Amino acid sequence: MNEQETQRFTSQIEFLVEMDKMKNIYRQTRVLHEDRAENDAEHAWHLAMLAIVLSEYANEPVDLKTVLKTVLIHDIVEIDAGDTYAYDAAGNATKAEREQKAADRLFGMLPEDQGREMRQLWDAFEAGSTPEARFANSLDRIQPLMLNYCKHGESWRTHGTRREQVEKRIQRIFEGSQVLGDMAEELIRRAAEEGLLK
Amino acid sequence: MNEQETQRFTSQIEFLVEMDKMKNIYRQTRVLHEDRAENDAEHAWHLAMLAIVLSEYANEPVDLKTVLKTVLIHDIVEIDAGDTYAYDAAGNATKAEREQKAADRLFGMLPEDQGREMRQLWDAFEAGSTPEARFANSLDRIQPLMLNYCKHGESWRTHGTRREQVEKRIQRIFEGSQVLGDMAEELIRRAAEEGLLK
Repeated sequence: MNEQETQRFTSQIEFLVEMDKMKNIYRQTRVLHEDRAENDAEHAWHLAMLAIVLSEYANEPVDLKTVLKTVLIHDIVEIDAGDTYAYDAAGNATKAEREQKAADRLFGMLPEDQGREMRQLWDAFEAGSTPEARFANSLDRIQPLMLNYCKHGESWRTHGTRREQVEKRIQRIFEGSQVLGDMAEELIRRAAEEGLLK
Repeated sequence: MNEQETQRFTSQIEFLVEMDKMKNIYRQTRVLHEDRAENDAEHAWHLAMLAIVLSEYANEPVDLKTVLKTVLIHDIVEIDAGDTYAYDAAGNATKAEREQKAADRLFGMLPEDQGREMRQLWDAFEAGSTPEARFANSLDRIQPLMLNYCKHGESWRTHGTRREQVEKRIQRIFEGSQVLGDMAEELIRRAAEEGLLK
């Protein structure tokens, strides 16, 4: 390797070591088989598994590689910006600014070509501007709902979450997948019936 | 959805719920920023990030989507078979049989077409029979080495791991990537120099 190649490789490894922090960013969702919160690395892996198995239900044809990259990187800005609970109004007011700054630093650790590509995927995810981004958003919203329902609404009950809040949040699922939107509505209906949601 | 479609969808969701168990299978490798072991879901996500960033260093051209699918699913048999430490001779003697049985059950939860595709990816990974499988194996061996080195050899010291054991294990990295093999040798050389490896 010449000097330029060594520099490229070094920055890539430094980025990948930095990524280890994703294992310590805890979400509100609980894992099913231990008494603890799910972290961002686990969440991203689970979304990738959903992407592989459920891509046939995307409303529009999607490129699976792009969906996978998107879900794998979609939360890395939380290394600096932290996780903001979906129903935390104050946190959500400053979320965009904190995350833009985080994106500058984190994607900026990579060689320019790779950082630019990841930033574009993340921007598209945030804006829901491509079929892949819309489907990734659907997965990002159905996965916690699925876990929450399987875990008897634990994080809803902790936060006193109301049915209308969850119903509003899942609307975006329909933009990426009618089938997963229908599943979300069915889970909410059952959760309300079972008293898991106020 | 007709009855057959509903059955397909239900089996897919059941498989994805079962996957949550990956978050509770702990490896010997330690995460960098907490005092605990890494779990299989985190490990698989980290490998996927390595795949995205480092695929230019594969010895042969690789299809990134296939590499991603491979690393994301490569350890799911451990849901039934458990994690076997790389340097545990007794555990490794029965590993193949336990994992074959696990593969039958877990991939068998999916619709036949999807189960067959994943099983093929996993078989190829185990055998190192495709460029994508060989590169996935390289990633699977460089990642714990990278974390172990960054964490001052914690799991090597716990197990009294010897330099020759690690050197033998990393040989397979060269089959998928000369560059990552060279990096592995350099990390081992430094670890030995710093007294992290016996």
